[in-house]
Formats: sequence, structure tokens, C-alpha cells
Amino acid sequence: MERPTPLSAHRLAVIIDSWDTGSGPAYRRLADRIRAAVMDGRIPTGTRLPSERTLAEATGLSRTTTARAYETLRETGLARTRHGSGTVVEVPLGAAGSTSMLGRPAGEDGLALTAAATEAPEGFARLVEHALRSLPAVLATDGYLPDGLPFLRERLAARFAAQGLPTDPEQIVVTTGAQSALSLLIAVLVRPGDRVMVESCGYPHAFDMLTRAGARLVPLPLGETPWPLDDVARIAPAVQTALIVADHHNPTGALMSSQDRRAVARTLSNAGVTTIVDETLRDVSIGGAPVPEPYAVHDPRAIVIGSAAKSLWGGLRIGWIRAPRSLVPRLVQERMLRDLGTAALDQLVVATALERGEIMPEGRAADLRRRRDALIAAVEDRLPDWRLSRPDGGLSVWATLPEAVSSALSIAAQEEGLTLTPGPRFFPTHPALGERHLRLPLVLPPERVEEAVSRLARAWARLGSGHALAPGDPDAVDLIA
Amino acid sequence: MERPTPLSAHRLAVIIDSWDTGSGPAYRRLADRIRAAVMDGRIPTGTRLPSERTLAEATGLSRTTTARAYETLRETGLARTRHGSGTVVEVPLGAAGSTSMLGRPAGEDGLALTAAATEAPEGFARLVEHALRSLPAVLATDGYLPDGLPFLRERLAARFAAQGLPTDPEQIVVTTGAQSALSLLIAVLVRPGDRVMVESCGYPHAFDMLTRAGARLVPLPLGETPWPLDDVARIAPAVQTALIVADHHNPTGALMSSQDRRAVARTLSNAGVTTIVDETLRDVSIGGAPVPEPYAVHDPRAIVIGSAAKSLWGGLRIGWIRAPRSLVPRLVQERMLRDLGTAALDQLVVATALERGEIMPEGRAADLRRRRDALIAAVEDRLPDWRLSRPDGGLSVWATLPEAVSSALSIAAQEEGLTLTPGPRFFPTHPALGERHLRLPLVLPPERVEEAVSRLARAWARLGSGHALAPGDPDAVDLIA
Repeated sequence: MERPTPLSAHRLAVIIDSWDTGSGPAYRRLADRIRAAVMDGRIPTGTRLPSERTLAEATGLSRTTTARAYETLRETGLARTRHGSGTVVEVPLGAAGSTSMLGRPAGEDGLALTAAATEAPEGFARLVEHALRSLPAVLATDGYLPDGLPFLRERLAARFAAQGLPTDPEQIVVTTGAQSALSLLIAVLVRPGDRVMVESCGYPHAFDMLTRAGARLVPLPLGETPWPLDDVARIAPAVQTALIVADHHNPTGALMSSQDRRAVARTLSNAGVTTIVDETLRDVSIGGAPVPEPYAVHDPRAIVIGSAAKSLWGGLRIGWIRAPRSLVPRLVQERMLRDLGTAALDQLVVATALERGEIMPEGRAADLRRRRDALIAAVEDRLPDWRLSRPDGGLSVWATLPEAVSSALSIAAQEEGLTLTPGPRFFPTHPALGERHLRLPLVLPPERVEEAVSRLARAWARLGSGHALAPGDPDAVDLIA
Repeated sequence: MERPTPLSAHRLAVIIDSWDTGSGPAYRRLADRIRAAVMDGRIPTGTRLPSERTLAEATGLSRTTTARAYETLRETGLARTRHGSGTVVEVPLGAAGSTSMLGRPAGEDGLALTAAATEAPEGFARLVEHALRSLPAVLATDGYLPDGLPFLRERLAARFAAQGLPTDPEQIVVTTGAQSALSLLIAVLVRPGDRVMVESCGYPHAFDMLTRAGARLVPLPLGETPWPLDDVARIAPAVQTALIVADHHNPTGALMSSQDRRAVARTLSNAGVTTIVDETLRDVSIGGAPVPEPYAVHDPRAIVIGSAAKSLWGGLRIGWIRAPRSLVPRLVQERMLRDLGTAALDQLVVATALERGEIMPEGRAADLRRRRDALIAAVEDRLPDWRLSRPDGGLSVWATLPEAVSSALSIAAQEEGLTLTPGPRFFPTHPALGERHLRLPLVLPPERVEEAVSRLARAWARLGSGHALAPGDPDAVDLIA
């Protein structure tokens, strides 16, 4: 049946090395570290842990310690020893498929600051109703739309053109969300061993997908911006592909300046790098600085990914790719092996939203602004040592902690009924760098922010009192949108 | 940028060997065979053809012949010689992304008998309207449903239970169509080099996905049924996994008997084979024999795939997996790397259809019956030498031709304005076996069947007169649903 995926002792040592988690016996601390990495998705269920002996060698711990740590994991139902397969991580059955495994609150009273995604904006139901007026024409077809609904492709092309990127509808492929767009592009463009430039902190699922495809991630260090120009110039000649989130960068909220866009694009295109620009958050502008011209204006060969999931609603699985025409047939063929096409109703809704100028409803921007301000005010009030970003767009605030304890804080917060995604999850190659950070998504309405931040502050207080490492429930895996 | 995928001379020889295509100079015949294989998707765009020399060695043709054939392909815009990359197949830009590349009719007057998929059934718009009454509850969430809408998972579980398969909703994962369900299962269960038992003719995209995953296909020969029991017993000990379509098998329309279900399931489960049962066409019963109990009743460890795309409408990208609970977390994690979840509106529509007993509307069964009868009558009238299946369900009639000329017929039909999928496309390992077959999907309403079959008969007549090999437009790639 399903086969375990091996994890090397070296890799496990890198993952847990970022967890400077306090007191108690060594085996217990080791078990807690592994447990926490399973919780946030860095160690997926079905992973075969390295042998006790190789883990001992890689970490410098004794074999007795590693053996007792594994025993603890088994006792708490988080791992199983399978005949001939070693020790395999298994999320307990009770949690399988429940929302609690998705980094969401388990109990009725639980709160989560994990996925950067909100409920649908006001007026969404009316938009759907409006879209359904065009339904009969679509129902008269067989509904399979491997490249996308023509109506939607035309509107997207016109929109790119209006932003300074002349685009033929045949350059557009509509996908099942931006995730699926990136997954298709990786399948077509990236070969095992390819080097891919990424931002040093960024969207974890993108890193997971690239790693799965056998790519070697080459991270830009996080400087004043996520794109220090000197580092771009240093790295460009060494990579085949680059992945860039220039608009309301996730998780920092940074917006690449027009000047930097020009400079980065020139450097990468001169080096012959194929650049994928993820514009998922481009439309999620919530006031403040205007968004500069699209990155691809400076590199017309760049491939652009877009999405309606953040600007409009995540329940719409609609993303798109703008690619050179020569790439489109391969993308369509690849998607024929995956989902045959994207939901027709959703495509109608997004086409209608574009037509009516409602892809990022005005009310939504105002609402997100209120959430941002309430969150920042509450954290500044309760946790005055923390430094916070004040993003002009996107769906999260980026916190810098006075100490490198993000993972321990996440464990403590779980005890308080608050689920967090620890900072290391956003740093693909050097997770320890994330211990000083926490992403706080704008998911809660102002009236619930107060309670969430109270819990956060209580968890923070626990850290000082040494209670941080009481084992939390190993029931959260991953939902980071 | 995108890299060509190499195709070995041996494999190309196997593909084109099935094309016994008449007269004319050898280089021209070779070019026509390659062109036709590109047309139906067996050779994807972006494929690097073997060198002229190795192809000559593998086929026994002269190097001059292979060189002139490649030259012809280049002249007609179907291949390009790229510096350092050899000869690469490229679907002409004009066709990129247009419906004509999807095996659909190019012109206004064109007809296609390719995808087994129809327009939405009568009453579908009302169903959507009804489903939208439940929308507000879903809009209050963030819409990300990696395992599926709870409402839909419950209804699917209850339905399995009613069919004799007790099922917990946590055993269900809702996917973006059955294609995506199979793609997820292959990613989780199949490793490169695994042997997978498949029916010797079947759904081409399933074979494409398995081959892409590095699986080795072990086909059951096509006997009285697609599942000769002796061959199942012979093959079972040699494979890790089996893929079975027991209900209205695509493309033959065969229905596995209850007795055979029991026998096949016992043999496979005794051999420890993990079986994937694709029930996509189970609900598409159009009268005649009742459908036996689900295959999985006899092998409760079997993994079941279902879909609403055939029973209801292909524009709904809703499929599902029923799996042992232990497998669900891995499936959900895998899908997080692909599409994060399935469209919420579509899930509501399917849940509503299940609740109202409209997943296969009665009117649709009657309509498909009329289409089947009209198609059979027209073919029997015009092409009396052909043998036809008279399926009790599914979306196509399976024709057996008096000569092994299916590919040549498809080329001739294109000239008549009729697009076909040649029989070899359905035979993964021995395409030549498909030359005696043609799948005729029930896509056209009775009033258009007459015209389509006239064109088919004219194309058939051309074969006799030696005109079959006039080059068709190389503008069709693949849409076989």
C-alpha cells in the first residue's frame, strides 16, 4: 500500500536545529521538536524517520536519547514502527481529514492565525447570481475547458494589456487556482537538479512543490527588501529559473519598487533566467502606496501567475497563467494529466467580476484595512517589544520577535487555543532564520482580534515561565494559503 | 525555457508500426504516420524525435527516408530543428490554445466524435439555483476545502453505505474531477518501476498518467470481456497495483458481472494487489442490464474513484476518492501541492444533486438512450460490415471494423470535416490492436448523428479508393474525456 517517504538524518537535523526549545530531558526536547515540525507540515505524515543510530550521529545526541524520543512519539500516537519500514510518522486517525489537521482550530472555542484567507466579501452572492445569467451558453457545451473559458481568457488578456502587457487571449491558461498554475509550470519548466532562485522567506507550498520536483532552492537573503540587488546579481548566473512575488510579498508584505523591478528584471533576463512572477496578491491592495507596473513589463518573457482566490474568495479555485504562446500547448497537455480543466461556474463568476470591476471589491479593501489596523493596535498594546510590518496590501502582518522562539511560541499558543504557523515554515533552506518571525494573517474581524491577541500574549508570557514545552496535540498539519 | 521530452526510436517505431497506411513514397507515409500520432496526442508537442539515424535503424527504413520524412514535418510546420535539441514536435502556434487542438472540430461546419462528454442535461440550471440557497453558509468560511465540503462528504459516504459499502465521511476526499483523483492516487501509491495491471484497452489519460509516473503497464488481453479471469490470475502475482473500470467500461461499454467481480477481487486481494476502481461511469446507466454491486464490496481495501462529470456535466470538476482512512492524510497533503481544494460552488451543486436524487437525471438517461439508438441505426445502415456494441451505459459505442485501418480512417474523416480518435489511442502497450476499433461517443443529438455518420461513411469509402493519405491539418492534439 502507500510507501513511506524517507527523511535523511541530516535533513531532520536541519529541521529541528531551529527549535531552541528550553528545558526538560534531552529525549523529551527532541520528541517535542519533531512533534512540532509534524504539526506545521514540515515533516509530512507518511515520512520514514531516519534510524535512531543515524539521527544520533547527525545530531551528536546519544543513541539512548534518540531511541527514547522515538518511543515517546510512538506512545503519543504520532509515529509507528512498521515491519521493514522503520519509524513512520502518522497523523492519528482521529485527526485525519478533520479541519484540525489543516492548521485550524480544533475545538469550538479555538482560534487560528494560520491561513491568509478570509470569508467571501459582501456582495459575493449577488456576483454569483449575476454570473449565472451567462450560464445557458456554457451549459450548451460539454464543459471541458482545458485552456479556459474563452470569455474569461479574453477579459484577462484585456486586463494585462491595460496594465502595459499586450496579451493575446491564447497566451492565457486558466487553472484551478494559483497553486495549480505553479504546479503546472514547475512540471513543464523545472527538471531535477535545476537551481531555482527564491526569496529567502516565502510561500511554503511553493517551496514544497519545487523541492518535490527535485529543484535546488537558491534563496535570496532577506535584506532591507526580500530582493537585495547585489544578491540577485550574484545568484542570477547560477540558476535556470526564478520565482518572484513582487506585489505584497508573502509573508513580509513588501512591495517591490518600480526601480527594483527594472533592475531585477534586467539582471535576470540578461542571465537567461526564466522568471515566474506570482501576482496572486497584486490586486489585494488595501490602501497606502500605489502598486507599481507589473514586473513582466520589464521582462516580457517572464511567466505570470494570477489568482482570484485572494482578491475575491478562496472558494473560487480560479488562477491563471500568462505565458509565451509557444509554452501554452505544453501547459495544456500537462493539465490534461491532472484535472482536464477548471470549473466552468467559477470561471463565469470571475469573468463577471472582471467585467464589473469587482475582482477586488472596494468594500473588501476597507474591511482588510480595518482588520490590519485592529491587529496592529492590539499587538502593539499587548506585546510592545514586537516589531510589526504595516503592509499596503496582502493578507498578513509580519512580526519580528525580540527572541528566536517562534516555534516554542506556537506550541504554547496551541495550549491557549490559538493555532499559529511558526516562522521557520516560511524559510525553506535555513528554517532557524524564521524563529524571530511570525506571520499574522488578517483573517479575524476586529471584534475577534482582541481575543486572539490576548491568547497570543498569554502564550508569550508562558515562554518566560518555562511552560512552553508542555506537549501540544499533534493534530495540526498544514494549511497555509 | 521549456525542455523537449525525448522519445526513443524504439518507442516511435512501436507507435507508428500500427499505421498501415497505404500508398505513396515511403518518406511521405512515414511523415503521415508521425503526423497522425501527433494529432491524437500519442506524441505530445514538445517531444524530441529520435535522430534520423536511430529511427532508420529501429524501423529498417533508409536514412534518406527518415531524413525526408522529418523535412516534410518541418515544412508543414509540425516540427522544428532546434540548435542542440534535435527535431522537436511543435503544434503550430495558430492552433495553440484553440479548441481545434483539443480534438474538436476546427471549422464552423466541423463535427467531432472524440470526447465522450455532452452538454449539461435539462434542468441543470434549476439545480444550480437550488444549490445556491446553501451558499451563504459556505461563503462565511474561507472556502479552502482540502478534503472537501463536509456536506458533500457526508452525502457521498451515505451513498456508498446504501450501496453496501459502509463508509465514514472521513474516508472521502473530494477532488477536482476523477482525473485529479487518479492523479493523486498515482502520486501517493505508485513508484517508478511499479507494475500496474490495466485493461488492454481503456482510458488513454489514465495510461498517460501511469506511464508518466514511471509505472510499467501490464495489460489484460481483451477477451470476451476486458477481464479474462485466467489472465487476471496469471498477472496478479506480478503487479503491485491494478486499475479497473468495472462499470460501463470505457471504451468497450462492458459491465463486469457480479460473479466476475467476486472472482477478480478475490484473486487480486489474495495476491496483495492494491486495486483502484474507477466508478466514473457507474451512474451513467442508460437502460438494459442493472448495474451489479460495487466492485469494492468484494475487496473493501480497494480504493474507489467517482465523478459527477459524466452522470451530470463535465463542466463540474467534481470527483472523489473513497479510501482507507489511513490513506486520507497523505492524499490531502499531496493535493495541497496541486490545487489546495476543489471549487466550493461545484461541490454545493453536486451535494444538492445527490440530495435530490439527480446525480444522473432520468431525462439524461432517456436522452443518451435515444442518441445510442440513433447512432447504432445510422452506422448499421451505412456501414453494415461494422460490428457495434450496444452498451447499457457509459457514453460511447465501441465499433469493430472489418479491416485494421482505424488510423487511416481518422485521417480520411478529418478531410470530411469529422474528427475521430483512432482506436490505437485506447491500447496502451500494443496500439496496433486498436486498428480494428473505433470509439463512437454519444455526443451528438439524433438530428446531427445522420450527418456525422454520412461523413464517416464517405471517409470509409475513401479508404478503398486510395485517397486516405492526403495530409490532414496537424491541428488536433487531444481531448478524450
